[in-house]
Amino acid sequence: MKKRIVIALGGNALGNNLEEQYLAVRNTAGPIVDLIEAGHQVVIAHGNGPQVGMIQNAMTALHKQNPEKYGECPLAVCGAMSQGYIGYDLQNALREVLLERGIQKPVTTLITQVEVDLADPAFQNPTKPIGSFMTKEEAEILQARGENVVEDAGRGYRRVVASPRPIGIVELESVKTLMDAGQIVITCGGGGIPVAKQENGKLMGVPAVIDKDFAAELLAELVDADMLIILTAVEKVAIRFRQPDEQWLSEMTIGEAEKHIAAGEFAPGSMLPKVQAAVRFAGSGKGRTALITLLEKAAEGISGQTGTRVVGE
Amino acid sequence: MKKRIVIALGGNALGNNLEEQYLAVRNTAGPIVDLIEAGHQVVIAHGNGPQVGMIQNAMTALHKQNPEKYGECPLAVCGAMSQGYIGYDLQNALREVLLERGIQKPVTTLITQVEVDLADPAFQNPTKPIGSFMTKEEAEILQARGENVVEDAGRGYRRVVASPRPIGIVELESVKTLMDAGQIVITCGGGGIPVAKQENGKLMGVPAVIDKDFAAELLAELVDADMLIILTAVEKVAIRFRQPDEQWLSEMTIGEAEKHIAAGEFAPGSMLPKVQAAVRFAGSGKGRTALITLLEKAAEGISGQTGTRVVGE
Repeated sequence: MKKRIVIALGGNALGNNLEEQYLAVRNTAGPIVDLIEAGHQVVIAHGNGPQVGMIQNAMTALHKQNPEKYGECPLAVCGAMSQGYIGYDLQNALREVLLERGIQKPVTTLITQVEVDLADPAFQNPTKPIGSFMTKEEAEILQARGENVVEDAGRGYRRVVASPRPIGIVELESVKTLMDAGQIVITCGGGGIPVAKQENGKLMGVPAVIDKDFAAELLAELVDADMLIILTAVEKVAIRFRQPDEQWLSEMTIGEAEKHIAAGEFAPGSMLPKVQAAVRFAGSGKGRTALITLLEKAAEGISGQTGTRVVGE
Repeated sequence: MKKRIVIALGGNALGNNLEEQYLAVRNTAGPIVDLIEAGHQVVIAHGNGPQVGMIQNAMTALHKQNPEKYGECPLAVCGAMSQGYIGYDLQNALREVLLERGIQKPVTTLITQVEVDLADPAFQNPTKPIGSFMTKEEAEILQARGENVVEDAGRGYRRVVASPRPIGIVELESVKTLMDAGQIVITCGGGGIPVAKQENGKLMGVPAVIDKDFAAELLAELVDADMLIILTAVEKVAIRFRQPDEQWLSEMTIGEAEKHIAAGEFAPGSMLPKVQAAVRFAGSGKGRTALITLLEKAAEGISGQTGTRVVGE
């Protein structure tokens, strides 16, 4: 059973700095190529937390060095840079493993913009911390400009931005065209560069961070994938996580997953968005299954031997 | 006569910093969309001098701030970031003008690697200065590591890297696939991320800068373009440039261009590589023409009214 699969790679798959990423992507590539070798068609979405943080810190350092020449770098631009950076390393790691196994398949990274709605309630309540810590004085300058800044438990001040839901993928046609040509596509890096459509139809970069699991879920719907695989640091999803009666789940129906979500079983910013994305995909069409597991267990998960599957009723 | 055209955009088209680029790409987009509206198929290659310089300076500032966490950023990685950054701005500027004119055409930026040969004699004589100026002490640390550093006329020390010839485009199949689907492709940013093929076939990023005109020329050959348009700051190429007997040229045969090159008529690092790229393309196949002109004159140049054309014998 050859499937069309969207993979959502988490931060673990990429490491936290230049050297770590270079090594991490090499470990990441093997299990992904296993799926390609098994005949599945694979599209890859990925996070960018540490990478965009590094780039933002670098651009802030440059701005402070030479504020006359270099203004502050918009978050959307930092996101675009991170897509280039991560895509370059990831596509080459995949290319190397494909080469070792004698598989001829081009791998392409697309600079990808993901549309959000400025009326999304997330913009009323920005929660996602970005960039480096600031002093109180630096924070006040930003606040005076209308930026949202919060104190982070004694460690200083950080800017926070909204995390709105993705509603469209601007470069979708390009993703589909390359997939249809049998290519491996890396897209929606960091959840995509967040853009909002203005009244005249033009796109405007917005200071926001789109959850990469939600972006991958939307991508999976729009390319009509059979399966969304959300990779994480545990083999299965648990309820009563780290409690004496902890229970690892092999399968959840949408209804069961929603019940566990309502009961607060999953940590916000961690397992919760993964389960939410899985539920949404499983409910988006007949025969669509979401799988949450470890990268190294993805192949076994597809054949139903491990991981947590979220399935339609 | 609908043509398949590769455009090589120079630095003027992109500006020197974040704000300048945002505005510059808007001016750049109009004349490019004129060509698309006229029915030509357009692929865009571009330079990245100021942009990759900005990113390198930012990554160096970050490294100096926190050398434990952030090593020095390889030039190839800075190049990948610059492709994301420039592509994002350029594709949106194009998209806006297309939208204004009611043209439905996706625009896509591909992270693009361009292959070079480590046996290229350019590696024996690195000449391309990159990054910010250093003190003598900083220069000596780099030199001790085997880097090439030169003194720049009293302004300090700068690292220099090789500028080898491009010999292949790694993502060529992706460029072709998207072109065949009628898309506008942005590729070979900054001349491409320079990579060398190792004995096992794997690619390795190399610290080098590929001239964007040479990369665009190779791209034009490989996508079987009819025309290579090299955009620059003058409407036509001149011989005896800025001399009393200055002469603006409307057309050169390959032989004439080679004669002028041999006579030292064109400045290295400026008009020389453009004329060399034009000669190479015009000589690469029947019916292939290169055009050197201003962005705003591209449409007139295609119809033969201005610019300098380099044509086969």
